[in-house]
Amino acid sequence: MTAPSEEDRGKRASAWFQELRDDLCAALEEIEDALIGPNTTSDRPPGRFERTAWRRGDDGGDNGGDAGGDDGGGGVMSVIRGRVFEKGGVNVSTVFGEFSEEFRLRVPGAAEDSRFWASGVSVVIHPCSPLVPAVHMNTRMIATTREWFGGGADLTPVFPDALDTGAFHEALKGACDAHDAAYYPRFKKWCDEYFFLPHRGEPRGVGGIFFDDLASGSWERDFAFVQDVGRALLEVYPRLVRRHMDQAWTEDQRRAQLVKRGRYAEFNLLHDRGTVFGLKTGGNTEAILMSLPPLTMWP
Amino acid sequence: MTAPSEEDRGKRASAWFQELRDDLCAALEEIEDALIGPNTTSDRPPGRFERTAWRRGDDGGDNGGDAGGDDGGGGVMSVIRGRVFEKGGVNVSTVFGEFSEEFRLRVPGAAEDSRFWASGVSVVIHPCSPLVPAVHMNTRMIATTREWFGGGADLTPVFPDALDTGAFHEALKGACDAHDAAYYPRFKKWCDEYFFLPHRGEPRGVGGIFFDDLASGSWERDFAFVQDVGRALLEVYPRLVRRHMDQAWTEDQRRAQLVKRGRYAEFNLLHDRGTVFGLKTGGNTEAILMSLPPLTMWP
Repeated sequence: MTAPSEEDRGKRASAWFQELRDDLCAALEEIEDALIGPNTTSDRPPGRFERTAWRRGDDGGDNGGDAGGDDGGGGVMSVIRGRVFEKGGVNVSTVFGEFSEEFRLRVPGAAEDSRFWASGVSVVIHPCSPLVPAVHMNTRMIATTREWFGGGADLTPVFPDALDTGAFHEALKGACDAHDAAYYPRFKKWCDEYFFLPHRGEPRGVGGIFFDDLASGSWERDFAFVQDVGRALLEVYPRLVRRHMDQAWTEDQRRAQLVKRGRYAEFNLLHDRGTVFGLKTGGNTEAILMSLPPLTMWP
Repeated sequence: MTAPSEEDRGKRASAWFQELRDDLCAALEEIEDALIGPNTTSDRPPGRFERTAWRRGDDGGDNGGDAGGDDGGGGVMSVIRGRVFEKGGVNVSTVFGEFSEEFRLRVPGAAEDSRFWASGVSVVIHPCSPLVPAVHMNTRMIATTREWFGGGADLTPVFPDALDTGAFHEALKGACDAHDAAYYPRFKKWCDEYFFLPHRGEPRGVGGIFFDDLASGSWERDFAFVQDVGRALLEVYPRLVRRHMDQAWTEDQRRAQLVKRGRYAEFNLLHDRGTVFGLKTGGNTEAILMSLPPLTMWP
């Protein structure tokens, strides 16, 4: 068997991101059906993901993407507004084009040739219940004159629970350890450093893993790793949700959730590289800002 | 009469910012008393500003301010959570120290000597009623090896009203025209360009004025101008509030307000120079982010 061409690698990565999207959406819709109560959202109908396709350059905003003739691609947003998941987005996108002068100096392999190709899946879930943790997961493959993967997953509870935190980290550790014993400690630390709000002196949540510039020398191996990270999230997050979704919550807990969501919005708008990258490379504004929480409070 | 020393100029500017703060707070508290109805907030007690002093470096966050031995200063937040004004902040601060290497190259007159002194007043009001426009006003004096004023005022209605917009612009035009016929057209255009969300392709509100690096050659003249801008806001904004505060609003209008506030948060966290300047120079996080809206929605 010959090594896959760059194009085949891109196609395989994109196809996997879509497959993971399908599996995640199905798992979350099952949870919407499974809710019993006793909270005020329980008598709403189960939520379903709605898909909206976008093409690059179709939205009204000018993101400084300076889309030239060869810029293109697009994506599909899948958004749920349900009774367990107040707002959840599972977005896939594949875009290509040329980096602006400002950007090419900051992206590996783009100084020599400004062309890029990027494909990814991005998941952000804001549950109704303040007892159910919010979650984020993202994986992307980027190709310039180099090729690499980046991504991560992190959990943001309003009220951290040691068992939830343990199960979440255990699942990610399992995905990491199957590939390289050095991954988990390194990527966990990277996550703690990355998902941190310096102006608040506090972490975004209870961590997880974060990695970038992953190019071990074997694309097959790296691709297998990011697939396992996706599967780990698919396995663990539904369990955490089901553990808490039928517990009653109070108005005070709900209020604490809205305040915590404010911190989440601060992180994404002030610090998140993916948000800045997306907005500056002509990504779709609605898709990028889908990560922002539904109802939020800065009291 | 001899020209005032730099220190006297700083003291006079700071004293004026505090005087404007006192006058604005008094005017807004009078409005809290004057509310009649018929909205759900009308039966709450009239709100009052609460003051909290802070010293630089006292908050938990590490803002990258890298405060050296000579860094210092502080400020006073005045915050109201009332029945007309859901959340309003009128903050004054006077800080000094040394810019970081990153910053000094971007600030006029700081390349030669990294020391700075800055004093200002900042006003952001988020009303309860979606029919009452939100407003922002800010003036600051900054001294490095140079000295200048910056500031501005802009109005953010949920449902723009031609009479409100006209009155607001007229008041600012009056303040400008009393000093230089070129100011208003120039500063209005600057405002339109500055308070714009490129990723949304939409302005933050209906504009006003924005200016920076104001150093005409006469500090007295520039100081008189920024005072007139403050007085213009003090005169016009209460009229706009009183015009609408007793009008009934609907749930749909309230929802539109929460969505509009999301845009406001996006602007402040993604684009606002004052926010970035403050967070990066060791300003007080709570005071800086006081501008963020109380209840906000990204549906």
